[in-house]
Amino acid sequence: MQSIFHRVAVIGKYQKSRARSVPDTLCKAVREIAAFALQHGCEVALDDETAVNVKLRDFPTHDLDAIGRHCDLALVVGGDGTMLSVGRRLARHGTPLIGINQGRLGFITDIALEGFEAMLAPMLEGAYEEDVRPLMHGSVLRGRDCVFEALALNDVVVNRGSTSGMVELRIEVDGDFVANQRADGVIIASPTGSTAYALSAGGPMLHPSIPGWVLVPIAPHTLTHRPIVLPDAAEVAIELLSKREASANFDMQSLAQLKPGDRVLVRRSPYSACFLHPVGWSYFATLRSKLRWNEGGS
Amino acid sequence: MQSIFHRVAVIGKYQKSRARSVPDTLCKAVREIAAFALQHGCEVALDDETAVNVKLRDFPTHDLDAIGRHCDLALVVGGDGTMLSVGRRLARHGTPLIGINQGRLGFITDIALEGFEAMLAPMLEGAYEEDVRPLMHGSVLRGRDCVFEALALNDVVVNRGSTSGMVELRIEVDGDFVANQRADGVIIASPTGSTAYALSAGGPMLHPSIPGWVLVPIAPHTLTHRPIVLPDAAEVAIELLSKREASANFDMQSLAQLKPGDRVLVRRSPYSACFLHPVGWSYFATLRSKLRWNEGGS
Amino acid sequence: MQSIFHRVAVIGKYQKSRARSVPDTLCKAVREIAAFALQHGCEVALDDETAVNVKLRDFPTHDLDAIGRHCDLALVVGGDGTMLSVGRRLARHGTPLIGINQGRLGFITDIALEGFEAMLAPMLEGAYEEDVRPLMHGSVLRGRDCVFEALALNDVVVNRGSTSGMVELRIEVDGDFVANQRADGVIIASPTGSTAYALSAGGPMLHPSIPGWVLVPIAPHTLTHRPIVLPDAAEVAIELLSKREASANFDMQSLAQLKPGDRVLVRRSPYSACFLHPVGWSYFATLRSKLRWNEGGS
Amino acid sequence: MQSIFHRVAVIGKYQKSRARSVPDTLCKAVREIAAFALQHGCEVALDDETAVNVKLRDFPTHDLDAIGRHCDLALVVGGDGTMLSVGRRLARHGTPLIGINQGRLGFITDIALEGFEAMLAPMLEGAYEEDVRPLMHGSVLRGRDCVFEALALNDVVVNRGSTSGMVELRIEVDGDFVANQRADGVIIASPTGSTAYALSAGGPMLHPSIPGWVLVPIAPHTLTHRPIVLPDAAEVAIELLSKREASANFDMQSLAQLKPGDRVLVRRSPYSACFLHPVGWSYFATLRSKLRWNEGGS
Repeated sequence: MQSIFHRVAVIGKYQKSRARSVPDTLCKAVREIAAFALQHGCEVALDDETAVNVKLRDFPTHDLDAIGRHCDLALVVGGDGTMLSVGRRLARHGTPLIGINQGRLGFITDIALEGFEAMLAPMLEGAYEEDVRPLMHGSVLRGRDCVFEALALNDVVVNRGSTSGMVELRIEVDGDFVANQRADGVIIASPTGSTAYALSAGGPMLHPSIPGWVLVPIAPHTLTHRPIVLPDAAEVAIELLSKREASANFDMQSLAQLKPGDRVLVRRSPYSACFLHPVGWSYFATLRSKLRWNEGGS
Repeated sequence: MQSIFHRVAVIGKYQKSRARSVPDTLCKAVREIAAFALQHGCEVALDDETAVNVKLRDFPTHDLDAIGRHCDLALVVGGDGTMLSVGRRLARHGTPLIGINQGRLGFITDIALEGFEAMLAPMLEGAYEEDVRPLMHGSVLRGRDCVFEALALNDVVVNRGSTSGMVELRIEVDGDFVANQRADGVIIASPTGSTAYALSAGGPMLHPSIPGWVLVPIAPHTLTHRPIVLPDAAEVAIELLSKREASANFDMQSLAQLKPGDRVLVRRSPYSACFLHPVGWSYFATLRSKLRWNEGGS
Repeated sequence: MQSIFHRVAVIGKYQKSRARSVPDTLCKAVREIAAFALQHGCEVALDDETAVNVKLRDFPTHDLDAIGRHCDLALVVGGDGTMLSVGRRLARHGTPLIGINQGRLGFITDIALEGFEAMLAPMLEGAYEEDVRPLMHGSVLRGRDCVFEALALNDVVVNRGSTSGMVELRIEVDGDFVANQRADGVIIASPTGSTAYALSAGGPMLHPSIPGWVLVPIAPHTLTHRPIVLPDAAEVAIELLSKREASANFDMQSLAQLKPGDRVLVRRSPYSACFLHPVGWSYFATLRSKLRWNEGGS
Repeated sequence: MQSIFHRVAVIGKYQKSRARSVPDTLCKAVREIAAFALQHGCEVALDDETAVNVKLRDFPTHDLDAIGRHCDLALVVGGDGTMLSVGRRLARHGTPLIGINQGRLGFITDIALEGFEAMLAPMLEGAYEEDVRPLMHGSVLRGRDCVFEALALNDVVVNRGSTSGMVELRIEVDGDFVANQRADGVIIASPTGSTAYALSAGGPMLHPSIPGWVLVPIAPHTLTHRPIVLPDAAEVAIELLSKREASANFDMQSLAQLKPGDRVLVRRSPYSACFLHPVGWSYFATLRSKLRWNEGGS
């Protein structure tokens, strides 16, 4: 059978910090997946860093932006972290992603490497479910200057330095004063990020179709500062009031040091990441599996 | 100055259970508010139960449905509980409500009885902010029969009987299996209800513009059963699996006893309640006040 | 090898409500365990209800009190609920218990039925770890009269009726006023009960050696009413202030209906339950297993 | 009337970082309190730093250790932070402290500066309640070497650096493995510290008479890692497993940078701090006030 996707990119684990020695299993995985797409009639390209890492020279290579411009599907080998980082980069091009995971399945990567062929074949032929996830656009304003900008799929986190006590933050939504919070920090999480760090800090899960962010204070001094779900049509601003060391993290992957008076702004990016899942995929089944619901446990 | 509202109803504290002896302050309040509306050129009617309770015979009386059909504004004297109960009844007519509170201000009643004139005058003249709150439609299915129906502004609660242990509930969203939960019960709360019982049970606050409900398990056996925000476009179904005594509560004001196998369905009602607030009203200011944020406290 | 225990009782699943049809596996288990004790030189008796349930006539039978008086070990087949109920009854006699579980292991029953012989043999010979758990003594005072008394190993729970709203409770510790709480109820849990209902309601775990109870409010109206650990040397009193239906539960196994003004008193019983575990037993290993820590999960 | 305390030290706000310009109110307060003690027949000394800060030359001065050796009472002007820091230093001498607070009363400083005379007079005459709080002894082991040691009255906190993700920590109690936790960090709090940072992070309150610490994970990855109360007779060890930046904080006042493999040990110090309160002081009244219980609020 022929793939409905014509130009397919294969991207291996992309987190540079961990890429020191690329394991053989990744090389083998990338080679097999590329071969599989080729058999289905796709033109196959490799992400350029992946090609270097896995020492595979049989395919043309592109950087991620070129992949976004030229390919109509990206097959990503890695975990949720890799998917987040590739998803952010391809979002502006609308290129859909399929995640293939070597280890334990994740919230958005739900095809196991072992036996991937049976899952992937029908998807290439057009049988899949689309899962569109909004992107957050974060920026840091110092006075009137924007000194940092980043996209996030999971969350924007403003938190204290390790050696200082609580930070004091002023929260506004569309210019409306919400509260001053003294806390270790605050998390603004998308539905995608609501099952990550925000959940650990006491936030609720947000179904992916909810057009909102959840703002979760981390260890707030005032016990009635509880998680609040805000519309993603609004702009959330977090101003650093205290003179202590603090930073803003975007998907825990890029970081800006903050100065007193800096304002971190979060709004809905016009772009979304698009993940494809096998037919029958269920958001709730993923939650059940990842959170070990219904295992008869204590 | 003239009111832009032509036919105004005045409704006193409406919770029958507490109405045994109507206090003089309520009688005085209803009389003053009715007189005030009259001075502003409104035709004034009284809710029929209110008229009996406060022994006021100078105004025509209507039941709540007639008020909904004939009046273009309802002035409600009471707390949040009264507003919920009147708001549910008037929602199908689209009649807006203004809440005037004798005691401590509530989440939706934000005009103090003392000095209400200065707040109310501009509102009658058209200077107000509209606050539209979605209604939940709840029903109980026994086999194929609908054995109970009710509207709720705050929440639908399925919970165990007092003498039994946990209930086991099966949760579905639009027919998708979510989880079996063993717990004291579950709360499905609207944004309005998210600051009431659901907050006590560990749920997040939902901004009123969020088109969703939050499902909050009460004391769940499995610790990873955490609050989840669901789209209000979906139908949530809660089935009673266990053979223990259980009930469904709607705004904690009407109640259905459940039998094993009963399914409680919650969906978005086509109607909404409409509350009017003074210009400058802020949802967040209400939260700050009610939750005692920013009081410099511990 | 000979047992150091001379007179051993075997007790099968003891929860009457579930005992309608005693399963064959239980009969077989009781028979095997009794035979095993006999082989080790013990005199073996059966709990009288167990003997009837499992239709075993080869052994003398005693009621639980006689077992307490005459036996120096009780072998209990069942889960944590059975252990709690037998443990409470034997506590005044100081008879130690060993729990053998047909299903998933519990917090205090840690010998699996399958292959119990290898675990039990060294214990009968004296190689075991002793795990002493304090008992709570609960009583209900109506005016000056004590209208109800019960022991509890897990918890004393005061909670609202199913059809009413929150109850208002006045908490005192040794006559000192603590707080008035409006809530679904409050739990006072021992270290043993801290991993049961109290944990679901947001309480901490208490190590068994902590001489304290944890008082956990259930869905408290005031968000700063948080769990508090109190010394077990103090008497905790909970008075029902509101006129609503409420009850007091002891280990969720016995129940007293409360009237307004009733006071539930909780103090340390002079007795303790004594559970024996295999050598190498670890409280923390049990937590890891029951709470699924360190499973690499989400 | 004569004081039963013969040699009394007066100590002003002691947190160096904030002492840049000592406010006139502090100088006045120290002078008045010193004069008051003198009138009651005490020999009065000043802490040497205080004397320099407030420019008071009429009294002999001692450093804190000399105060501990020579004085039988310390009057401390400041908030809870000052009390913690002085309390730690005087603990080995057993010198009791009375806290006089210029601002909002704290958990352990409960005499307001305004009108302190009426409160203090009976205390000097022997009418007071003693409130003994255990000290934690913390140390950092690198291999076999102890590279850091500190006392803490509130808590020992091991937490991640600001720029890194979660740390992975291995928890042991008296050599027993408890769990590996991935989290922002963990707090080990005494009863005194249980109402501070640990409470913000979701921990319970511990009554001062509980001989235990509460271990509270901060934003733990695994949702079933919940606060646990451990006996203070045990030694708690926290080993840094991950290769990320982390630190150990003692009362958030002194700090050790950690390296992978470092072990933070916490045990009960042989010393305790001793705070004196006015007769009628109540721990629960302090909680009610600080946590705004029973204010009729939401």
